[in-house]
Amino acid sequence: MSTSPNCPFCRIVTGQIPAAVVLATDDALAFLDIGPLADGHTLLVPKSHYPTLGDMPPDALQRLTGHLPALTGAIMSVTGASGFNLLQNNGSAAGQVVDHVHFHIIPRTEGDGLGFRWNAGSYAPGRADALCQAIQAALRH
Amino acid sequence: MSTSPNCPFCRIVTGQIPAAVVLATDDALAFLDIGPLADGHTLLVPKSHYPTLGDMPPDALQRLTGHLPALTGAIMSVTGASGFNLLQNNGSAAGQVVDHVHFHIIPRTEGDGLGFRWNAGSYAPGRADALCQAIQAALRH
Repeated sequence: MSTSPNCPFCRIVTGQIPAAVVLATDDALAFLDIGPLADGHTLLVPKSHYPTLGDMPPDALQRLTGHLPALTGAIMSVTGASGFNLLQNNGSAAGQVVDHVHFHIIPRTEGDGLGFRWNAGSYAPGRADALCQAIQAALRH
Repeated sequence: MSTSPNCPFCRIVTGQIPAAVVLATDDALAFLDIGPLADGHTLLVPKSHYPTLGDMPPDALQRLTGHLPALTGAIMSVTGASGFNLLQNNGSAAGQVVDHVHFHIIPRTEGDGLGFRWNAGSYAPGRADALCQAIQAALRH
């Protein structure tokens, strides 16, 4: 397990910062967000320090996400929420504040006032095809 | 592979509705969102029909998320975005519109105007401990 000395989530993993831990396994930790957007707002993190999702080996990401069905089910049953958002931010442009991969689990109820600035656009003619082909090509390399 | 006849994402999987498909595997499909929040906004879905994340067996979810590092890397390299949000909504209260599990990959750049109504709160004394214990107990059942 690799840790980063100044990372607050690594310090939670090592016990240097207290947290309300709801799940602890060999390689994952889940704890309540101290600035909750909703009752039961939980963070799921790998114990090892990876700055972003793109830094995680696929198998480490798979081990982490394997906890989500049971964890989110438990959070839903305890909070009585009717839905939840799973949100994971990468990079400051995406709103990432702590540079240690974390999945937000945000319980939702109708009319809770949370949400997204969801301004759907559309592609100019040809742009979607060009993008699609470029992403396909990038995946082949 | 189980499909649902009226589900638009199942109809994309079976080829009845066209889409700009960037990745297709035995059990997963990724395609451009037709109402993009940003250039390169992509959806990753399991080919089988599961309404929400909680309906997926953990191993199916793990197979799906194993595609994320390569897929998001390709999208980032093609779009030149400096970050991305991974967002997955469950239930109408959470903004889920299509009842087939999908991960939004939303490329982000500084000042793009996207974002969340992020109104962090705090727990009343004792509430975090009570929640934590209740979620731990729910996970043991």
